[in-house]
Amino acid sequence: MNVEITKLSNGLTVVTDPMPQLESAFVGVWVNAGGRNEVRADMGVAHMLEHMAFKGTERRSARVIAEEIEAVGGFLNAYTSREQTAFHARVLKADVPLALDILSDILIRPTFEQKELERERQVVLQEIGQARDTPDDLVFDHLQAAVYPDQPLGWPILGEEATVSAFSQDQLRGFMNTNYRAGSMVLVASGAVAHREIVALATDLFGDLKPGTAPAAPLAHYRGGDKRETGDLEQAHITFAFPGVSGTDPDYYAMQVYATALGGGMSSRLFQEARERRGLCYSIYAFAHSYNDGGLIGIYTGTGEGEAGEIPPVVAGEMALLAENATDREIARAKAQLRSGLLMGLERPSARAESIATQLYAYGRVLPVAEVTGLLEAVDTAAVRRVGARVMATASPSLAAIGPIGGLETHETFARRFGSATRRAAE
Amino acid sequence: MNVEITKLSNGLTVVTDPMPQLESAFVGVWVNAGGRNEVRADMGVAHMLEHMAFKGTERRSARVIAEEIEAVGGFLNAYTSREQTAFHARVLKADVPLALDILSDILIRPTFEQKELERERQVVLQEIGQARDTPDDLVFDHLQAAVYPDQPLGWPILGEEATVSAFSQDQLRGFMNTNYRAGSMVLVASGAVAHREIVALATDLFGDLKPGTAPAAPLAHYRGGDKRETGDLEQAHITFAFPGVSGTDPDYYAMQVYATALGGGMSSRLFQEARERRGLCYSIYAFAHSYNDGGLIGIYTGTGEGEAGEIPPVVAGEMALLAENATDREIARAKAQLRSGLLMGLERPSARAESIATQLYAYGRVLPVAEVTGLLEAVDTAAVRRVGARVMATASPSLAAIGPIGGLETHETFARRFGSATRRAAE
Repeated sequence: MNVEITKLSNGLTVVTDPMPQLESAFVGVWVNAGGRNEVRADMGVAHMLEHMAFKGTERRSARVIAEEIEAVGGFLNAYTSREQTAFHARVLKADVPLALDILSDILIRPTFEQKELERERQVVLQEIGQARDTPDDLVFDHLQAAVYPDQPLGWPILGEEATVSAFSQDQLRGFMNTNYRAGSMVLVASGAVAHREIVALATDLFGDLKPGTAPAAPLAHYRGGDKRETGDLEQAHITFAFPGVSGTDPDYYAMQVYATALGGGMSSRLFQEARERRGLCYSIYAFAHSYNDGGLIGIYTGTGEGEAGEIPPVVAGEMALLAENATDREIARAKAQLRSGLLMGLERPSARAESIATQLYAYGRVLPVAEVTGLLEAVDTAAVRRVGARVMATASPSLAAIGPIGGLETHETFARRFGSATRRAAE
Repeated sequence: MNVEITKLSNGLTVVTDPMPQLESAFVGVWVNAGGRNEVRADMGVAHMLEHMAFKGTERRSARVIAEEIEAVGGFLNAYTSREQTAFHARVLKADVPLALDILSDILIRPTFEQKELERERQVVLQEIGQARDTPDDLVFDHLQAAVYPDQPLGWPILGEEATVSAFSQDQLRGFMNTNYRAGSMVLVASGAVAHREIVALATDLFGDLKPGTAPAAPLAHYRGGDKRETGDLEQAHITFAFPGVSGTDPDYYAMQVYATALGGGMSSRLFQEARERRGLCYSIYAFAHSYNDGGLIGIYTGTGEGEAGEIPPVVAGEMALLAENATDREIARAKAQLRSGLLMGLERPSARAESIATQLYAYGRVLPVAEVTGLLEAVDTAAVRRVGARVMATASPSLAAIGPIGGLETHETFARRFGSATRRAAE
């Protein structure tokens, strides 16, 4: 990687990451604000704003935006997460200037017309409906609510019917004016790009971005809890979460290795025990999510009504065992998986750009690949056991579940499997 | 692309597609048999066999297979479609020999142990449950059943509870013995690979594959029909299908362009009318699927209970209009989207390998990129109108829907919107 960074006078960070062998480029703007920057009445406004940016600017109608990018075979899209909102385009080399022009237009001059807002509100309400029909997504909203009750981090990114139905132009403009500040935004271009050219284009096109930085979101407080929704589904969709680490925590890589050894592949503890040995599920995996100021380690599985009761003891049992007897061999394997995932990601401009934006957000700098692989390599079995023991020691594990979940043990029973005193393995 | 092809003495086709700039490779074996090669009692056996291949060989247990590939950071996976079953691995350059060794082992020497079969049966039953909880997937099984009633192409790839519960070792062995024949299989290696080396490894590792070819699947007969399932969902998930073309039909590219102009991007007719102008849905898209001997052109959307009734007339109306007044500008745009999608796919070894395997299956050869872009370029507005008119002329449109669909018009009413005589546009 040969990353170059320039800060424009308004504070916008411009990063290029050339991949000379490519004919296409991925360019995106990341705004360091998302769902957790909302107040309650604004729940979902970051996502609504992401939608409305495409619905017309002072220079282009919604239809013209779509037609211009697609006329050159480009793909324009966006997403909203809890800490960032990203707007990005994938185009052939010659069309990078057009892509940046459109991105700057929708980020600086959106009109948020009332008529378009009324229509797009209906689209987002349909999107909420679609999310409710996707139980393996919906259960993660429940998990987030269980972990962070009454905090923006615990709210659904799409918002709720009530808030989405009430959004006004002023709310959109207010959120944008507060958070879309050049000092809290980064433009990343990976692929067939050259730094000088991108900086020149960015200076020209993004000079009108308002300077300043977005205010910090309220701090995250892991509380832990339980949220269940009995429903008419084939499967019980069950998730667990425990306190994790932030992206800059010294144990960040140890936690990633722990999650991988626990449930990151076919050879992981949970896959082997729950799927291969017991046949309880088709999908089971562990994940480690990091925020600016904390994080989660968690597990998802989908299982049958008759099998659901077996899941909590199996999960808690495997977590306890891994903390006690993680082997050098399986930790080497988990590290190899993470390392090759990282190296393979370097072959895709979208993955590179996103990783650069995430690192700039978390660390304020782009980590050289060798530094990341070095940090990963430095994780040893003792470190994994240590973070595993720290996870097991929590007094407040979280559980969220949807579907035919009558057979699932109470939160109290589950919680007793954790905490320093009364750890239990599965029978 | 610099593709080289060698046929081994047992009939296995070995293809390499070097990408010298990469540090990793994607290697896979495609078997030209899938769901449509099953008889009724075998429904789901192609997929069950794909699962069981990983459950142990004469040389490796299921756990050893998982551990060996993950110890080097590799990713091993497989999928079953209606016409092909693929087994593939993504590994770093140095680990290609190991990946091919494991692939050959699971394809030549699986043991299908009874104990493992009993366990994996439970896993596949869970996978069926998961599919039932994914309405935007499930509705496609219903659509396939509506289009191809009482034909293998109309059956779910996962099978049904009854067939999966009854699978025997003999059924698996029988399906494998009949269909896993070297002359109907192709090994493709894209990325950091060299032809000589791959051919030497393949000769060594895949020499024991049984020669011969798999028998042809029964011919596809598009019948058309209607399949609905009222259910307690947030959204009405609605799909339509119409007779399409095979992969070798002279109108193949015209049909792809038609589907793209109809519902392939933000600027497409359906996206603009159903989402942007009417706010009826979050997702709406068109697709063109091709089989060896026919194909489908279809549409999916997810919408609300109150909006569902509006969908059929809007879809039929936009289809009618596109056949009548497709413009040069929108056809150029659709072609640009398909072209850049193709070129960007060339940057990913997995997409290249899959495209090579698909072309070998459909055409018996690998099409140079310039030939494909030439065929695409040759599609003009008249050709798109012509295939559009052909689609509109069908006497048997298909409809499948799940959810709160009481407001959806009857199949008879919908069918009257098609056929040569009584075409109607949306109000």
